[in-house]
Amino acid sequence: MLPGKMVKTMIGFEHMKTISRVSASKMVLLVIDGVGGLPHPETGKTELETARKANLNRIARESLCGLIDPIGPGITPGSAPGHLALFGYDPVRYNVGRGVVEALGIDWDLKPDEIAARGNFCTVADNGIIIDRRAGRISTDMNTELCRLLDDITIDGTEISVRPVKEHRFVLILRGEDLFPELTDSDPQQAGLAPRTIEALSPQAERTAEIANEFVSQASSRLQHEPSANMLLLRGFSRRPTMPSLPEIYKLKPAAIATYPMYRGLARLVGMQVLPSGESITEQLDSLRRYYADYDFFFIHFKSTDARGEDGDFRAKVQAIEDFDDALPSLLSLDPEVLVITGDHSTPATLAGHSWHPVPFMLRSRWCRPDGVTEFSERACLAGGMGRFPAAEIMPLAMANAFKLDKFGA
Amino acid sequence: MLPGKMVKTMIGFEHMKTISRVSASKMVLLVIDGVGGLPHPETGKTELETARKANLNRIARESLCGLIDPIGPGITPGSAPGHLALFGYDPVRYNVGRGVVEALGIDWDLKPDEIAARGNFCTVADNGIIIDRRAGRISTDMNTELCRLLDDITIDGTEISVRPVKEHRFVLILRGEDLFPELTDSDPQQAGLAPRTIEALSPQAERTAEIANEFVSQASSRLQHEPSANMLLLRGFSRRPTMPSLPEIYKLKPAAIATYPMYRGLARLVGMQVLPSGESITEQLDSLRRYYADYDFFFIHFKSTDARGEDGDFRAKVQAIEDFDDALPSLLSLDPEVLVITGDHSTPATLAGHSWHPVPFMLRSRWCRPDGVTEFSERACLAGGMGRFPAAEIMPLAMANAFKLDKFGA
Repeated sequence: MLPGKMVKTMIGFEHMKTISRVSASKMVLLVIDGVGGLPHPETGKTELETARKANLNRIARESLCGLIDPIGPGITPGSAPGHLALFGYDPVRYNVGRGVVEALGIDWDLKPDEIAARGNFCTVADNGIIIDRRAGRISTDMNTELCRLLDDITIDGTEISVRPVKEHRFVLILRGEDLFPELTDSDPQQAGLAPRTIEALSPQAERTAEIANEFVSQASSRLQHEPSANMLLLRGFSRRPTMPSLPEIYKLKPAAIATYPMYRGLARLVGMQVLPSGESITEQLDSLRRYYADYDFFFIHFKSTDARGEDGDFRAKVQAIEDFDDALPSLLSLDPEVLVITGDHSTPATLAGHSWHPVPFMLRSRWCRPDGVTEFSERACLAGGMGRFPAAEIMPLAMANAFKLDKFGA
Repeated sequence: MLPGKMVKTMIGFEHMKTISRVSASKMVLLVIDGVGGLPHPETGKTELETARKANLNRIARESLCGLIDPIGPGITPGSAPGHLALFGYDPVRYNVGRGVVEALGIDWDLKPDEIAARGNFCTVADNGIIIDRRAGRISTDMNTELCRLLDDITIDGTEISVRPVKEHRFVLILRGEDLFPELTDSDPQQAGLAPRTIEALSPQAERTAEIANEFVSQASSRLQHEPSANMLLLRGFSRRPTMPSLPEIYKLKPAAIATYPMYRGLARLVGMQVLPSGESITEQLDSLRRYYADYDFFFIHFKSTDARGEDGDFRAKVQAIEDFDDALPSLLSLDPEVLVITGDHSTPATLAGHSWHPVPFMLRSRWCRPDGVTEFSERACLAGGMGRFPAAEIMPLAMANAFKLDKFGA
């Protein structure tokens, strides 16, 4: 017990490892990205309340429902902590740096000896002051060409990779011995200032700071005659976090079926096998059927609810929910012993971005003790048997319902 | 934050000690062991929902209700952590070892210089391989005789006690200076293997490991000609945990009325006086009346709901609940200032064992702010004023309702 505090009722991984066990049951975690919403000003109904969703509602009637806080009340999650919480990790303790998330987003399988940073091509004036932090949003093709120009820089035995993401965004990867990510950003995050010298935040990172500054200097020389992208900015230096994997903690054989690279990357971080996904939820569920016998835990990620929410397009987000609902019968016919449906955060169309609002949750199993909720929506799930709870508690609950946990204590 | 844990805001014992005070009010904690259940497949109703229980329902109408998680969502509690949480302790921090629980179960008043282990008599073949981990479940009489045969072994100044539990089960107690319980089990938990050498898990426990192995060796010689119980297995070496008592934390004068030794033992661990219990809930409540003036906190343990649940006998568990309900008027006529009725965990008859499901809770006092719940059951209590909450929060709440807590902070 910490002084003055009580550890909330969640047991640590060191105990979880001792009570988890293998069983034949299958667990499926369906993440509807950004599914939670806010009422439309005209109808007073959220996206979920507006959507026609007979399958989701039917599952709710057979489920234990609730509302999850991915991080905590009032805290808007990034995609990384939102998902890590769903996978059972304390999302504050196991924070993933900006550079790492960017590298995962291009399917880069980050190794322990690599440091990643998020990069922007930018435009600077003759006096070195930033005029445009995004270099006029150059095309991805131009970005690819510029990255190729920088990719063969090598400094003092440190290998360097520069890879395009999209428009002005790229990833810098430093690979070598004795590199440390405790570095300040060169990106001052606003125009009208000069790029900053990168500084070490710990004595051991001093050599890495020198290497990073030398890279900026050499890159700047190579870019100086470019019309708009004549400089670059770096931020979020980070290393792949050291964390126990789902196989270690829960003795699971887990697999991920996600159409976007970043979610595949997060899945790999926690020890999941990445399976072919195709490009739609129908193809994802086809892949689930094909590999169903080979794994006991499946993470399936549905992206377009979040994308349409970010667009601020209420009607399109409703449609995305309906498309998702239409695809469900293919999953339901597999009848997994434990089915969890929830989101990694809310993305209300009225806010056109991630938000702090809690997210509807349901867990269906033969042993879940249903609670009388008859609809999968924000308001309906509030009356569910889980009430409002931290997302990181989902995994132990799902494990219990799959008979994959022994009793704790004598 | 502890690794892999989430901290919730609840004040620690060091603060609780400063705000607790003595008052004339009486608190009664009635534990209906394993009371939570799951719906019967035919009726859709749980054991509590099925039982005729006019008294429990009447109390619910006057109470603050809720659902408790003894340890956390998904975690199935053993009896020890289930009860320690009800007594206000963090059940993960104050974990009680298997050997200690077994010693408590024979009413052994474990001292700080004693180490206890759970033992099995077993059968081994000539080559030392275990054939039967339970020695054909020998009779308790035979067990008692064998324990007597081993009870006078003394090794290097360490006193040894070997006491029968039931059938093939016994307790080994080592008593002496500089003994440490960080030891591996000799019991490999499956037949077809040889018993393991006990190993120290910390340098300080090395001498204790030698003593334990020497005990196994001498016991094995004495047992070698027994027809079935020709060897023994040991597991769960542990010491009585050091923990503050209820009188220290809450300034209470607490007493326990329990028919089973293990629950009396747990009560003694936290500083309760153990009172005569008789053998039924009626006799337990008679004892409560007799000693009512002498204590201000009473823990009353009702066992048969759990036993019938473990039997998988839905109907018999319903009957046990009805028997409990029938006994309540004798308690209600005492009209304690604070009455808490709950369980230490769920034991659904459909699962025939302890489970992870949360447990109905109610607290009646003149100051409890009733919440409109009209039935004591899993589904009804979900709508209660406490919602779903950790069992360790019950004690501060009960103390407040008994006017035994001062204001916190200026």
